[in-house]
Amino acid sequence: MLFGALEAGGTKMVCAIGNENGEILEQVKFPTEIPETTMPQIFEYFKGKDIKALGIACFGPIDLIKESPTYGSITSTPKKGWSGYNIVNAAKEALGIPVGFDTDVNGSLLGEVTWGCAKGLSDAIYLTIGTGVGGGVISNGKLLHGMLHPEVGHIRLPFAKNDPGKSVCPFHDNCFEGLAAGPSIQARWGKPAVELADKPEVWEIESEYIATALMSYALILSPKKIILGGGVMHQEQLFSLVRKKFKELVNGYILTKEMDDLDNYIVPASLNDNQGIMGAIKLAIDACE
Amino acid sequence: MLFGALEAGGTKMVCAIGNENGEILEQVKFPTEIPETTMPQIFEYFKGKDIKALGIACFGPIDLIKESPTYGSITSTPKKGWSGYNIVNAAKEALGIPVGFDTDVNGSLLGEVTWGCAKGLSDAIYLTIGTGVGGGVISNGKLLHGMLHPEVGHIRLPFAKNDPGKSVCPFHDNCFEGLAAGPSIQARWGKPAVELADKPEVWEIESEYIATALMSYALILSPKKIILGGGVMHQEQLFSLVRKKFKELVNGYILTKEMDDLDNYIVPASLNDNQGIMGAIKLAIDACE
Repeated sequence: MLFGALEAGGTKMVCAIGNENGEILEQVKFPTEIPETTMPQIFEYFKGKDIKALGIACFGPIDLIKESPTYGSITSTPKKGWSGYNIVNAAKEALGIPVGFDTDVNGSLLGEVTWGCAKGLSDAIYLTIGTGVGGGVISNGKLLHGMLHPEVGHIRLPFAKNDPGKSVCPFHDNCFEGLAAGPSIQARWGKPAVELADKPEVWEIESEYIATALMSYALILSPKKIILGGGVMHQEQLFSLVRKKFKELVNGYILTKEMDDLDNYIVPASLNDNQGIMGAIKLAIDACE
Repeated sequence: MLFGALEAGGTKMVCAIGNENGEILEQVKFPTEIPETTMPQIFEYFKGKDIKALGIACFGPIDLIKESPTYGSITSTPKKGWSGYNIVNAAKEALGIPVGFDTDVNGSLLGEVTWGCAKGLSDAIYLTIGTGVGGGVISNGKLLHGMLHPEVGHIRLPFAKNDPGKSVCPFHDNCFEGLAAGPSIQARWGKPAVELADKPEVWEIESEYIATALMSYALILSPKKIILGGGVMHQEQLFSLVRKKFKELVNGYILTKEMDDLDNYIVPASLNDNQGIMGAIKLAIDACE
């Protein structure tokens, strides 16, 4: 059985055809322009592919409340043309099949809990640290929506030791995204993260912010695994630094087997950067039920 | 139908008999000494009361993992005699009825979502700020356990403006509990909270810590309501201060109907300090299913 998957991002739209095992059989990309030019190309791609359903893992914020009159739409994005666009209704109309829908980060997490490093876990978090910071959460075996959906990148953090501390977030003076996402690294050091790999002072500060945020997630969500993805986390030296600082910060307050084995608690994404599109396949599978 | 309820705290044990409507028909208290002297009194009280099940909302940390060999026990408490005591097994043996079990704060939240201000909500948090700070969480309609259970009082916070900042938590230099629980207020100002009601500078700092923590909970858990209980929150002037600072901190980043109505989003506990024992009644009811 075939399923369509759309990972809808602010710069590109990844479309794939997959099967019930999460195998990606084919994949294409389109640049994200405006709905009127971008979406018809996507729908054209999926037509005639004999897919049973489409799953959309979408950039946000989005309306996930099933009872809402605007369910399925992108809400207050600054991205021109997309604010208020109902991507779910448009897809249903164009393709006439069931459509599953969630945030991009919940999609990535769903990929990891279905086929990746968090397989079968009831409680986990997937965090992406790149141009922004976002997170998907599964809680009691279901992707977390609640009032809206988690926006874990915008929690307030204490300034790291030796950080002059200037947030690049337009909303918050000292939030995690504003202090630790890619643009913040660039603003602090004058170069993109990828050119700073050999500067320990960069990763000292970065890992303190990440570890502090992870401690909050661990204490509030009690996840069984924390998965880190996104461009900044391609700096693999960060993992051991983050685990070390996390351990120092928690300071023995939580006693669980997970805390005794941080190498398997704080882990990189496991699906070769396909976690998002694979999660979208699972959203499509679930939409058939 | 009658149910037994035990709110097991570090200083007192509240025992009650209730019905399926959460009505408390009778109630007694015993001081918390050691299990060998305290628990027989409790079991004696419940015997012959014709209760169908017992619900225990218990101080922690506790083992809530059903598959664990130590499920039902209090784990690493400093409270003499209780570390490793299996309160669930003891109750089952003494009374021969089903026993429901959760944290004290999850119990309070369960009372509020069953009969109180959060009735029917799938996602909410109950926070108690008193001698310590703890929180219960419901997520996707179920009390959150995950790896252990939430320990939301120990997240790191930035020091408040004008706070010399000294945490009284033995584990953490700048966690919420260490900076804002009752003992911290006493350490900072030399008097207990209740004697400081007319000092605005006390509540300025206190409300900043609370608002910052609530912002993290709101962004990470996406709750539909935040309920505040505990001794410190008996200072009712805190509510308007906390809502004001919360609004400033979120700064329009989340757009939901809840954010437009903070008076109904950040609210006091609603069950006259009976939320814990009423939650324990519900734990008993659920244990029969």
